[in-house]
Amino acid sequence: MTQTATRPYVTERKIRFSHCDPAGIVYFVNFFDMVSGCVEDWFGEAIGFTFNEMHVKQRLGFPIVNTGCEFFRPCRLGDQLVLELVIAKLGRSSIEFRVRGRVAGEDKFLARHKVALMSLDTQRALPIPADLRAKMQPYVSAEAA
Amino acid sequence: MTQTATRPYVTERKIRFSHCDPAGIVYFVNFFDMVSGCVEDWFGEAIGFTFNEMHVKQRLGFPIVNTGCEFFRPCRLGDQLVLELVIAKLGRSSIEFRVRGRVAGEDKFLARHKVALMSLDTQRALPIPADLRAKMQPYVSAEAA
Amino acid sequence: MTQTATRPYVTERKIRFSHCDPAGIVYFVNFFDMVSGCVEDWFGEAIGFTFNEMHVKQRLGFPIVNTGCEFFRPCRLGDQLVLELVIAKLGRSSIEFRVRGRVAGEDKFLARHKVALMSLDTQRALPIPADLRAKMQPYVSAEAA
Amino acid sequence: MTQTATRPYVTERKIRFSHCDPAGIVYFVNFFDMVSGCVEDWFGEAIGFTFNEMHVKQRLGFPIVNTGCEFFRPCRLGDQLVLELVIAKLGRSSIEFRVRGRVAGEDKFLARHKVALMSLDTQRALPIPADLRAKMQPYVSAEAA
Repeated sequence: MTQTATRPYVTERKIRFSHCDPAGIVYFVNFFDMVSGCVEDWFGEAIGFTFNEMHVKQRLGFPIVNTGCEFFRPCRLGDQLVLELVIAKLGRSSIEFRVRGRVAGEDKFLARHKVALMSLDTQRALPIPADLRAKMQPYVSAEAA
Repeated sequence: MTQTATRPYVTERKIRFSHCDPAGIVYFVNFFDMVSGCVEDWFGEAIGFTFNEMHVKQRLGFPIVNTGCEFFRPCRLGDQLVLELVIAKLGRSSIEFRVRGRVAGEDKFLARHKVALMSLDTQRALPIPADLRAKMQPYVSAEAA
Repeated sequence: MTQTATRPYVTERKIRFSHCDPAGIVYFVNFFDMVSGCVEDWFGEAIGFTFNEMHVKQRLGFPIVNTGCEFFRPCRLGDQLVLELVIAKLGRSSIEFRVRGRVAGEDKFLARHKVALMSLDTQRALPIPADLRAKMQPYVSAEAA
Repeated sequence: MTQTATRPYVTERKIRFSHCDPAGIVYFVNFFDMVSGCVEDWFGEAIGFTFNEMHVKQRLGFPIVNTGCEFFRPCRLGDQLVLELVIAKLGRSSIEFRVRGRVAGEDKFLARHKVALMSLDTQRALPIPADLRAKMQPYVSAEAA
């Protein structure tokens, strides 16, 4: 019996001055922007479906249905944040991501982020096409569910 | 048997151009900023403990432990968003808020937002002082838990 | 000889936690967002031409041609910022605003902000219609030029 | 007679969904954030004086005195923006940058951005130390002034 190892998508962000608040740590809202940007990068780089192609040319979108994040430790100015994305659940129209944030191996946060495919014109949910679904499959993690 | 009616804290936000994305709806990250701003307003106006007094003078903070939001319907440019805050759970150091977003009576989102009192100097959790706790009590909702 | 006094458009902003940076003062970028929001409010409230009507219904926009700001003194958490807008120059397609930021009577910044009317469909500049121009006239300041 | 060629500092930014507005182009405020981030990167990478070292350890800052930007053409989702920074004027306490934004060789904007060295504790201007000044010298451009 063969088993395909899940491949997380990994990208990095440098913590800048503008991300930080008067307490000297990253303002939590910026983490959601990074999680969303990580999903955008994954679509473009891992799936080959850029947000420009998706939104502008095909008039499709993946609006957020539900999102949340648990924060373990603060991030600080100058930190190099590593984001690791896997798919916890691949539904008919929806994708539920897990995005983990780490700095130097230390867990900073864990986000779950659920989006669903929609037509921007009809505002209706659409099933994820089979070719996209096939490209997403390697990122589905049994553990994350 | 007496029953104390829960008083939600209510504040409003106008949906501006800068809140919206290329799909013409509010970029979800801005809702977290509004939820956090609503909590800040509640501290200042309802509890009488401004963020300036808290952070700058008393060197205390309420960092976010856990937050999440379910999105029901998109918000659009020009919408007048009504935010309603109640406390779902008042812990020893932590407060778990429920913040509901509505436009013209229609539910747009429901956020749960958990923060915990911390010393900015020692980075340690602190119990919420009794006088603050007393002022918070009217906002605790049995239903929201 | 009669003289029509210029009427500045005035609106206020509360300086929140999320506007401030690790130095404890407003991150300058947020002032540009406030200046732009002040222009948006002026269009809606003073001119009666909301950004929703403008962008979504009429497919018109006022993109920024040129903007700049001189910063005199920092703003801090909890400050109540008063924004005063006048028109320094009303061109054929363009409007050059002056937006002054004050806290408790103290000048904090002075922005000049030039926008020009454009069709979102053709991406071409358009002359400002006479009826809009007439409503803008009372805000034109001789001194500001 | 020898002439030392000015070396611009170059860094790139990918235009993301979150940078764009309902008109489908980059919301101008985000360009100021990118210009400021470019200055931050230059301090860390070109001068060897990171913002963490500067703000947190040495309690110094370079607040913005004056900034402005001329916008030539809009940027769109998916654009790869190249930022080129030179120093137009190196004063005693102040640095006036020119930051040019280009996509595929086309000029998008030109910002001038003036900052001045300050003690975060005394809130007073300080002269730029000789060792930092020496490292900044190669970025001073005669043409940009």
